[in-house]
Amino acid sequence: MAEIKVAQIDMPPGLIDLGSGQPGPALLPLALMEKAAAHRLSQGDPSLLAYGYEQGDGYFRIALAKFLSEQYGLPVDARQLFVTAGASLGLHLICALFSRPGDIIFVEDPTYFLALRIFADHGLKVIRLPMDENGLIIEALEEKLAAHKPVFIYTIPSFHNPASVILSAERREKLVRLSRGHDFLIVADEVYHLLSYGAAVPSPLGGFAGDGTVLSLGSFSKILAPGLRLGWVQAAPALLERFVKSGLLDSGGGLNPFTSALVRSAIELGLQHEHLEHLKKTYAHRMLALGAALRQHLPVSVRFDQPEGGFFIWLRFARGVDIKKILALARQNDVAFQPGENFSGGRGVNHCARLGISYFETPQLEEGAKRLGRAVEKYLEAI
Amino acid sequence: MAEIKVAQIDMPPGLIDLGSGQPGPALLPLALMEKAAAHRLSQGDPSLLAYGYEQGDGYFRIALAKFLSEQYGLPVDARQLFVTAGASLGLHLICALFSRPGDIIFVEDPTYFLALRIFADHGLKVIRLPMDENGLIIEALEEKLAAHKPVFIYTIPSFHNPASVILSAERREKLVRLSRGHDFLIVADEVYHLLSYGAAVPSPLGGFAGDGTVLSLGSFSKILAPGLRLGWVQAAPALLERFVKSGLLDSGGGLNPFTSALVRSAIELGLQHEHLEHLKKTYAHRMLALGAALRQHLPVSVRFDQPEGGFFIWLRFARGVDIKKILALARQNDVAFQPGENFSGGRGVNHCARLGISYFETPQLEEGAKRLGRAVEKYLEAI
Repeated sequence: MAEIKVAQIDMPPGLIDLGSGQPGPALLPLALMEKAAAHRLSQGDPSLLAYGYEQGDGYFRIALAKFLSEQYGLPVDARQLFVTAGASLGLHLICALFSRPGDIIFVEDPTYFLALRIFADHGLKVIRLPMDENGLIIEALEEKLAAHKPVFIYTIPSFHNPASVILSAERREKLVRLSRGHDFLIVADEVYHLLSYGAAVPSPLGGFAGDGTVLSLGSFSKILAPGLRLGWVQAAPALLERFVKSGLLDSGGGLNPFTSALVRSAIELGLQHEHLEHLKKTYAHRMLALGAALRQHLPVSVRFDQPEGGFFIWLRFARGVDIKKILALARQNDVAFQPGENFSGGRGVNHCARLGISYFETPQLEEGAKRLGRAVEKYLEAI
Repeated sequence: MAEIKVAQIDMPPGLIDLGSGQPGPALLPLALMEKAAAHRLSQGDPSLLAYGYEQGDGYFRIALAKFLSEQYGLPVDARQLFVTAGASLGLHLICALFSRPGDIIFVEDPTYFLALRIFADHGLKVIRLPMDENGLIIEALEEKLAAHKPVFIYTIPSFHNPASVILSAERREKLVRLSRGHDFLIVADEVYHLLSYGAAVPSPLGGFAGDGTVLSLGSFSKILAPGLRLGWVQAAPALLERFVKSGLLDSGGGLNPFTSALVRSAIELGLQHEHLEHLKKTYAHRMLALGAALRQHLPVSVRFDQPEGGFFIWLRFARGVDIKKILALARQNDVAFQPGENFSGGRGVNHCARLGISYFETPQLEEGAKRLGRAVEKYLEAI
């Protein structure tokens, strides 16, 4: 029965695929969800089984707003929250409701590779903008705005996937100002924002929702469990109307009322907070360990920053290095990663690689770094 | 706290809104879901919390295929099933992945009014086809096919919403033959198919999935609970690939892995079967009672068929009757319904009205019929 598939990705035994961006089995909160489900389903209120309120269960949004207010350190209003069945569906719906095939959008280079697939499905024309160690370069954005009129810019401001950088507070403000001046939307993928375990992160772009140009995507996939398919969009109510009044929502009601009612219990019972603290402690430890192991096993020519949040380390090999060849050698060594070109339509990051800490525990991460070191060594010997 | 919204539609106290198409609170299976959740979440398998397999949890699809095979009386293959987060999302994704703005589609006249909203959101050009007591008129379809090339036809073959008719077996076969010959898809909304409590229903169009032109939409909204947002598309694997390989699925994984794992328990424990039997018995009773009460309280000029399945009675007043005026009088009497024009872009059903049995229990349905009778009487006296 081993061939009956349940999970999207089954890790082959023996392989340490550092390319993974999903939590490992030990971090999936089964007991927590059992407790939350038992709590919610014993309350005697069947309304969570009815067609849900289009914007999302009011009590859940109040619980989520309170949780986010505490986490963000700034007030989040439940009226600015629209409940989605995951950030990917949120992004898909933004494309479906706010754009038309042929429209121009801006993205960072590199960017989340699977967002690019969603944009392609909607026939959007993607223009790439460069980043540096402080995220999106605003001057480059201004230049492109002189020549193009994007519907939106898709940005990952905190613990960027894959580049792991944080957009500075100053740039966040400039970005929002530009969006107002040039009349484009900011689609901020902030799913890693709550996963800071050391870094001082500026306020999320969701904090600018009141300005009316920001759609901030949040998700329980990174702080609770991906299989729940539960997330949110934080935006001005006028923007949320577009979702709430769409044909899809009019027909089916809220996107995930049953699961959101259960997660409401997880928040109200304090279980979500506890779990997030556990995740941050675990990831902090893993990130330090992987960084140390990479410094030990990789040549100094391979550069990377030590992130204090999120899932990813972004390796920058010397330009001209053939990452595909290194990946092939790595696979022979039972280790893998995401090659840079996956995150870009261009060639500017072909010498880079994304490693993640979410799936494997510390000893495996260390072993992975060691195996990767050997593959790199082999590659360098051969050229 | 009464203003905090949870459900999509809160029935105002006192009003008997026969226009509703949702199950009433007493039919929402809270205890069943409590049992199913406790069962599934105590198995020690956290994989239901991971990103789910794109086509849908394999064990769930096997359980669903077995359930459908028994219910349909014909073999359903799990490889033909794609798990959705509800039929509305299924329909939205069909529009997003199989059509482009400006494309032509065919619908029945009348048709499910909220499907029309989804089509409008996707910029589709809708052409309406007439029906009779055996559903879609095939000759009318053939005529339109001579002049137009639709991407798909949207049809509700069993217990039509709103017209309550059943597409005959012969017409089903002709429709499938035409779809192959003229190269268009059939989007069959079969969410009421399992709700037969007397009528002999021909095989669902899903049974023709092997032909490669049928996408059959199914849903747990009508047989378990709408708030679960869980449904399926039955189609040939080559068609399902379009969903499975889309950017949305690639990014977020399966559309509702957590809930489908719980519902798998509901099926495997026999709870889904029991609940469906309970629903059919309840609805059969209500439908008979509402029919009898309408015959008692409405003038004979108002015609309708007594359905043996589904949710709806379709009233046909004399042509020229102003249904909007009757609705206004009805509302003064604390009763309501869906006026025919909601289900059509045309004027052919402006003298019709949809009444539903899903929300209210028998005494309220009878009271509703009585109040409606008084409103009609008042209207007739005034003209």
